[in-house]
Amino acid sequence: MLGVGLIGTGFMGKCHALAWNSVRAVFGDVGPVRLVHLGEANAELAVRRAGEFGFQKGSGDWRSVIEDPEINVVSITTPNQFHPEMAIAALEAGKHVWCEKPMAPLFADAEAMLAAAKRSGKVAALGYNYIQGPAIRHIRRLLAERIIGEVNHLRIEMDEDFMADPDALFNWKHASSSGYGALDDFAVHPLSLLFTLFGRVSRVMCDMSRPYPTRKTEDGSDRAVETFDSASVLIHMENGVAGTLQVNRSAWGRKGRISLQIFGSKGSILFDQERANEFQLYVTSDRKTEQGYRTILAAPHHEPYDRFIPAPGHGLGFNDLKIIECHELIKRISGAPAHLIEFADGLEIERTVHAMARSYQEQRWVDVR
Amino acid sequence: MLGVGLIGTGFMGKCHALAWNSVRAVFGDVGPVRLVHLGEANAELAVRRAGEFGFQKGSGDWRSVIEDPEINVVSITTPNQFHPEMAIAALEAGKHVWCEKPMAPLFADAEAMLAAAKRSGKVAALGYNYIQGPAIRHIRRLLAERIIGEVNHLRIEMDEDFMADPDALFNWKHASSSGYGALDDFAVHPLSLLFTLFGRVSRVMCDMSRPYPTRKTEDGSDRAVETFDSASVLIHMENGVAGTLQVNRSAWGRKGRISLQIFGSKGSILFDQERANEFQLYVTSDRKTEQGYRTILAAPHHEPYDRFIPAPGHGLGFNDLKIIECHELIKRISGAPAHLIEFADGLEIERTVHAMARSYQEQRWVDVR
Amino acid sequence: MLGVGLIGTGFMGKCHALAWNSVRAVFGDVGPVRLVHLGEANAELAVRRAGEFGFQKGSGDWRSVIEDPEINVVSITTPNQFHPEMAIAALEAGKHVWCEKPMAPLFADAEAMLAAAKRSGKVAALGYNYIQGPAIRHIRRLLAERIIGEVNHLRIEMDEDFMADPDALFNWKHASSSGYGALDDFAVHPLSLLFTLFGRVSRVMCDMSRPYPTRKTEDGSDRAVETFDSASVLIHMENGVAGTLQVNRSAWGRKGRISLQIFGSKGSILFDQERANEFQLYVTSDRKTEQGYRTILAAPHHEPYDRFIPAPGHGLGFNDLKIIECHELIKRISGAPAHLIEFADGLEIERTVHAMARSYQEQRWVDVR
Amino acid sequence: MLGVGLIGTGFMGKCHALAWNSVRAVFGDVGPVRLVHLGEANAELAVRRAGEFGFQKGSGDWRSVIEDPEINVVSITTPNQFHPEMAIAALEAGKHVWCEKPMAPLFADAEAMLAAAKRSGKVAALGYNYIQGPAIRHIRRLLAERIIGEVNHLRIEMDEDFMADPDALFNWKHASSSGYGALDDFAVHPLSLLFTLFGRVSRVMCDMSRPYPTRKTEDGSDRAVETFDSASVLIHMENGVAGTLQVNRSAWGRKGRISLQIFGSKGSILFDQERANEFQLYVTSDRKTEQGYRTILAAPHHEPYDRFIPAPGHGLGFNDLKIIECHELIKRISGAPAHLIEFADGLEIERTVHAMARSYQEQRWVDVR
Repeated sequence: MLGVGLIGTGFMGKCHALAWNSVRAVFGDVGPVRLVHLGEANAELAVRRAGEFGFQKGSGDWRSVIEDPEINVVSITTPNQFHPEMAIAALEAGKHVWCEKPMAPLFADAEAMLAAAKRSGKVAALGYNYIQGPAIRHIRRLLAERIIGEVNHLRIEMDEDFMADPDALFNWKHASSSGYGALDDFAVHPLSLLFTLFGRVSRVMCDMSRPYPTRKTEDGSDRAVETFDSASVLIHMENGVAGTLQVNRSAWGRKGRISLQIFGSKGSILFDQERANEFQLYVTSDRKTEQGYRTILAAPHHEPYDRFIPAPGHGLGFNDLKIIECHELIKRISGAPAHLIEFADGLEIERTVHAMARSYQEQRWVDVR
Repeated sequence: MLGVGLIGTGFMGKCHALAWNSVRAVFGDVGPVRLVHLGEANAELAVRRAGEFGFQKGSGDWRSVIEDPEINVVSITTPNQFHPEMAIAALEAGKHVWCEKPMAPLFADAEAMLAAAKRSGKVAALGYNYIQGPAIRHIRRLLAERIIGEVNHLRIEMDEDFMADPDALFNWKHASSSGYGALDDFAVHPLSLLFTLFGRVSRVMCDMSRPYPTRKTEDGSDRAVETFDSASVLIHMENGVAGTLQVNRSAWGRKGRISLQIFGSKGSILFDQERANEFQLYVTSDRKTEQGYRTILAAPHHEPYDRFIPAPGHGLGFNDLKIIECHELIKRISGAPAHLIEFADGLEIERTVHAMARSYQEQRWVDVR
Repeated sequence: MLGVGLIGTGFMGKCHALAWNSVRAVFGDVGPVRLVHLGEANAELAVRRAGEFGFQKGSGDWRSVIEDPEINVVSITTPNQFHPEMAIAALEAGKHVWCEKPMAPLFADAEAMLAAAKRSGKVAALGYNYIQGPAIRHIRRLLAERIIGEVNHLRIEMDEDFMADPDALFNWKHASSSGYGALDDFAVHPLSLLFTLFGRVSRVMCDMSRPYPTRKTEDGSDRAVETFDSASVLIHMENGVAGTLQVNRSAWGRKGRISLQIFGSKGSILFDQERANEFQLYVTSDRKTEQGYRTILAAPHHEPYDRFIPAPGHGLGFNDLKIIECHELIKRISGAPAHLIEFADGLEIERTVHAMARSYQEQRWVDVR
Repeated sequence: MLGVGLIGTGFMGKCHALAWNSVRAVFGDVGPVRLVHLGEANAELAVRRAGEFGFQKGSGDWRSVIEDPEINVVSITTPNQFHPEMAIAALEAGKHVWCEKPMAPLFADAEAMLAAAKRSGKVAALGYNYIQGPAIRHIRRLLAERIIGEVNHLRIEMDEDFMADPDALFNWKHASSSGYGALDDFAVHPLSLLFTLFGRVSRVMCDMSRPYPTRKTEDGSDRAVETFDSASVLIHMENGVAGTLQVNRSAWGRKGRISLQIFGSKGSILFDQERANEFQLYVTSDRKTEQGYRTILAAPHHEPYDRFIPAPGHGLGFNDLKIIECHELIKRISGAPAHLIEFADGLEIERTVHAMARSYQEQRWVDVR
C-alpha cells in the first residue's frame, strides 16, 4: 500500500492527482495506492481540492504533508522556486520524491537537490512526461535496434505562442529575474527527449532574440523586455552527432509543438507533439520505388498503449503520459528498472541549459561540462 | 454521494471504471462518487478487478450489483446480447443506467429497453463517446451558429482493419448469427455523430460487400462468409440534406478512422477521429486569395478541453471522452441539461441500421420510419 | 514530320498547344512536330493565337484546318457539343484525332464518333489527362504486381467549388439543357481513373442532389435550378469489386480534388489530385509494429517523371500531364502500344454516366450494358 | 524578335529550352522568340539536341553561340566553373545573359562577372527559380502588406538525400576541391528566398558536419571525406530579424525539401517546396476559437498561376518555374520591372555563403560585409 502526498493544486497538481487515481486501474500490475494528504498554501482550497482529487485530507502547510507518517511518496507540483526546499525536506523525511521539472532556477539549488537524493537513498524522479508517450518510447526502441542505422544529424524545435501577442502588457516573465526566457521555459523538454533518445549534449553555441524589445506597462509607459522569447542553439552530442535545438514562446500558430527530426545512415524518423499519437519513419530497406515516410499511428504494440486501449488509432491524451510516468515511478520505487529521468540526469539537463545561456552571453561555443 | 455499479470488466468496463475514478477530479463541479460494486461472470476475476478498478467489492453475479442498495447508477459494458436483460432489470430496480452501445442486436429488445426506461423514470443513457470530443462539440456549436451557412451535403466514413487479414480463420463474426457485419459493428458510431450534428436520417439505400467470400476453418476446409465487411449507404436526412455513410472493417491501413465531410453554403468542415484533436474549417468569409482549410487544434476554448488541460495543442485521449460522457451523465442525473444520447434517440439510431439492412435485402430505397 | 492542327484556343486549346510545343524537347524520342494550322471561330483571334502558340497560320474556319493537307493530326478542344461534327469530319478527312473529353453530350453522337473512328482506321484518342500522372501510372503498375493483393473495395470522389456560391446568378449550367449537372461535368474523370486501374463498371445506383434549389436571375426573380451539383453513386465493377463514386461541384474548399481510396487483401493505396505529386501506400508486408501509410513523392523512377526532371520531389504540373498524353498519342500514331483512352473505351465511360443518370431517374440499380 | 542561344544540354539546359519554347504561348504578352543556336561540347550531341529542343542549329563550340549575330540573349547552363568565362564573354559580345546559379565557385570570379555585367549595360540574370512559384510570390505580397505583422523570426531548411547512402563510393563531391559540401550545393537556394522575402543577411555563425567521415574508393580502401554534408547556421538579417538556415544533402527521406517558417507579430507562414503548390497561413485576425493554419492551394489569383491554368488546385510543376523566370527575364530585357535575381544580388548571396564557410573555419560569428 503506497501512501501518496501531493503539494500543489494547479495544472500539474491536478495532473498528478489524476495519475495517482488511475494508475492501478490502467496498469493492473501495481498494488493499492492511497491518496493520503494534499498540501496547498490556501488551507480552505486544500480541503476542497482534497475532496475533488480523492485525497483523504488537505492542509495549508506543505510540511505537514511531508511529515505525514502515512505517506511514502510526495508529488511536488509547486512553482519552480519552491522545488529545492520541498524536495530536500521530503527526501530528508524519508519520502520518495516525484518533482515537476525543472529542478530549480538556480543550478546550485539543483545540485543540492541531487545531493539530498543521494544521501536519502530514496527515489527522486522528475516529471518529464514527453518521454513517456508510446510513439517516443517506440522510437527509442527503433533507434536501439538501428532501424535507421547510425544517427548522424538531429533537429529539435519546441514552439508555442503564449507570449506572442505584442499587445500583452509587460509581466514578470519579461523581467530578467524570471530567468533567460524561452530557454528556461522550454529547453528542458526537448533536452529530456534528446537525453532519452541519444544521451547527453557536449557543446552548445546559442543565439537568443526578442521579438518585441519593449512592452507597455499598466500605466501606459514602455518598458524594455529583459528576457528572450526565442533561442536557437547549435549542438554537439557526446556521441558525436551534431544538430540544432530551437525554442520559441512567441511563435504564432504553434500550440504544443515539439518537432523532432532524426537522420540516420539507413533512414530517418520524424515526430511532432502536436500529433503525438503518430510518428513518421523512412527506411531505405523499403523498395526504392516505394520509399516514403510512413505515418505510423500509435497502437497496442507500442508499449504501453495497450494498457489504455486495446485497439489502434484511438489515441492517448496528454494526461495519460503522467499516468505512464506514475507507473514507471512505482516500478522504480519497487526496485524494478524504470524509464524515468531522475535527479542525476535532470541536473545534467539543467547544466546544459545554463551552458546555453553562457554561450549566448559570451558569444562562443561552450562545453557543457 | 453517487453509488456506482459496474457490470463487465473488458475494454469498456475498464474505460467506465477510469471515468468514474477521474470525473470528479477533472471537473470539480460534481459531488462525491463511490465505486461500490463490480459484477463479472467470473467471481474471482470480479474481486481482482474490483481491487484494481477501485471498487469496494466484486461479485460473480450481475444481479447482486443491480440489487445493491448502495448503488444509484449502473454501468453496463457486457457483450451486446446481454444489454436488454441487464438494463431492464436495473431500471426496474430503480437504478439509472449507462449502457454501452448499441442497445441490442434485436430491434424488439431495444424497444423493450426504451419502454422500461420510460416506465422507470430513470436516466437511461448510451455510451456514444465520439460525440463528446472537444472538436466534435465545437463543430456542433459552429454549425448552430451557421458558420458554414446552411449544410447541403454530408459524407461520413468509418473504417478499421481488424477483419482485413484474409488468412485469419472463420470466426463467429463471419456467421450471420452475429448480424450483418460491419453495419452492426460500426454504423451506430457515424450515426451517433450525424444525429448529434444534424438530426435523424429519413431514407437509406444500402449496398454491402464481402472482400473475402470464404475463409478457412480450423480443420483447413473453406467456409462461406455470411456477413459483410463493408457497407456503403446513400442517405437522406430528415432536414433534407443528402449524403453518404460508409463503413468498412477490412480496410487495411485504417485504424480508428471516422472521417466526416460537411459542406455548407458558406464553407465546409472536415474531421477525422484518427486525428481527433484537430478539425478543419473552410469559410468563404476569409479573403478570397487566402481561403483554405484551417487546421484547428483542440484548445481550452473548445469545451470541455480546459477541464483536462489549460494549454492548447496538447490533446485529449480516447479514455478522456468517457470521462466527459460520465460528467454529462451525472449532470443529467442531477436534472441538468446534458449532451448525451439516451435510449429514445438510441432506438432511432438502431432503427436506421435495421433500415439499411432491409434496403440491402430488398435492393431499394427504404424509409427509416 | 507530324503536321498538327488545333481547333479551339481556350484553356484546353492552350494546354494542347503547350504540349505540342514541348513534347519533343521533353521526350527526345519522337520526330519533328510542326504546328501548322490553328482554327478558332474568331478569325482575328485565330491569327493572334497562332502567333502566340507557335502555329504557322490561323483561320476562322475549323474546316480549313481539318482539310489542310499538311496536317496529320487534329486537336479538338472546343465546347463538347461541337466534338461530334468536328471529330467525324476530321476522321473522314483522314486525320488522326485527339479530342477533349467527354466525347459528346448525346450518347448517340458519341456512338457515331466511334463508328467514324472505326471506319477511318485512324487514331481517335481522348484527352483524359489524369490517367497520365507519374503517381497514377505507378499505382497502376503496383496494382498489376499485386502489391496490395486483390483489390476488394474502391472509393473515388471528385469535388470542386466553382458552383458553390449561393449568390451567383442562374446561368446556363443550371438549366437542364446543359445536362445532369455534376455528373456531366465531372464523372468522366473519376471513371477514366477507374477504367485505367480496374476496368469497366457493371452496375450503378445513383442519387443526386441540389444544394440550392433556386437561384436569382438578373432581373432579381427566383428561378428553379434544374441540374444537380452533386451525385453519389454506388458502383459494382465488372471484376466484382464494389465501391462508391461521388462528385460535387459545390463543395466549398475543394479545388481540384480527386480522392481515390483502394483497398486490397494486402494493403491499400490513397491518392488525391490536389497533391498529385505524391500518393500513399500501406502494405502488410511491412513489420507489424511499423505499418503505416507511406507518403511517396513522385520521383524519376516513376515513369515518365524522369523525362521532365532528374531529381525526386520536385513535381510535375497540370500542363505536364498533357505533354505525357501527347507523347502517348504520338507513340500510338506510330503504331506502338500506348497508355491512352481511345474512343472505344471513351464510349463505355459515357455509357456509364448515362446509366447513372437513368438510375437516378428510375431510383433503382441499373446495369451499364 | 528575340534571338536565343543556349549553352549546355543537361538537366538545366533542357529546362531552359522548355522555357524558351513555351514562354510566349503561356504568357501571350511577349513578342516572338527564336531559338537560334545551341552550344554543347560534343558537336554531334549539339546538333541532335538542337533538333529536339527546337533550335535552328547546334555547334560544338560555345564561342560560336555567343558570337552568333542573330542572338540577343544567351542561356548558360554549364557546370559552375565555366560560368565566369562564358558569362563574361557573352556580356562582352553584347548579349544579355541568363546564367544558372551559383555564379562561380570562386568569389573573385563572381565579382568579375558582376563587373562585366556593369560594363556591358546588358541584363545579367541568375536562374533562381524557387523565387518564382505562385506560392512564394504570393507570400511576398502578403509579407509586404504586413498580413502577419512585423516578421520577428525565421527558419529555413533545405534537405535532400542524394548523398545519404553510406555505401556509395568516394567521388569528386567528397573532395575539398569541390568546395565546402552542402553549403555550396544548397545554401544559395534558401538564401535566394530569404533575399527575395526579407533582404540581406548581416551576420552568420555556422557549424558543419560529416555523417560519414570516410568512404570506400573503387579499390576498396577507405578515404577521408573532406566536404560536409550538412551545415547549420545561426543568422541575423540586415533588418534585425534572427533565425536559422540549415542544409543537408544526406537527409534520408527528404527529396526536394525547402521548408520555410516565418513568424510575425500577427501570424505566421509556412512553406515546403515538396508541396510547392500550397502554403500555410496563420493569422490572429481570425476569431480566436477557430484560429489555425490555413492550407492555401495555389490558384489563379496567385500570380502568375492563371497564365498556366484558369482553375485552382491543379498545380504547376518544377519546369513551369523556369517559364515564369524566362518571362521575367524578357520583361527585364524590354526595360520593364522584373522579379529576378541579377548579378548584383547574386554576388551578395555568394558573399553570404563564403561568410558561412569562414565562420565555421574560425568558429565564430562573422559579419557578411
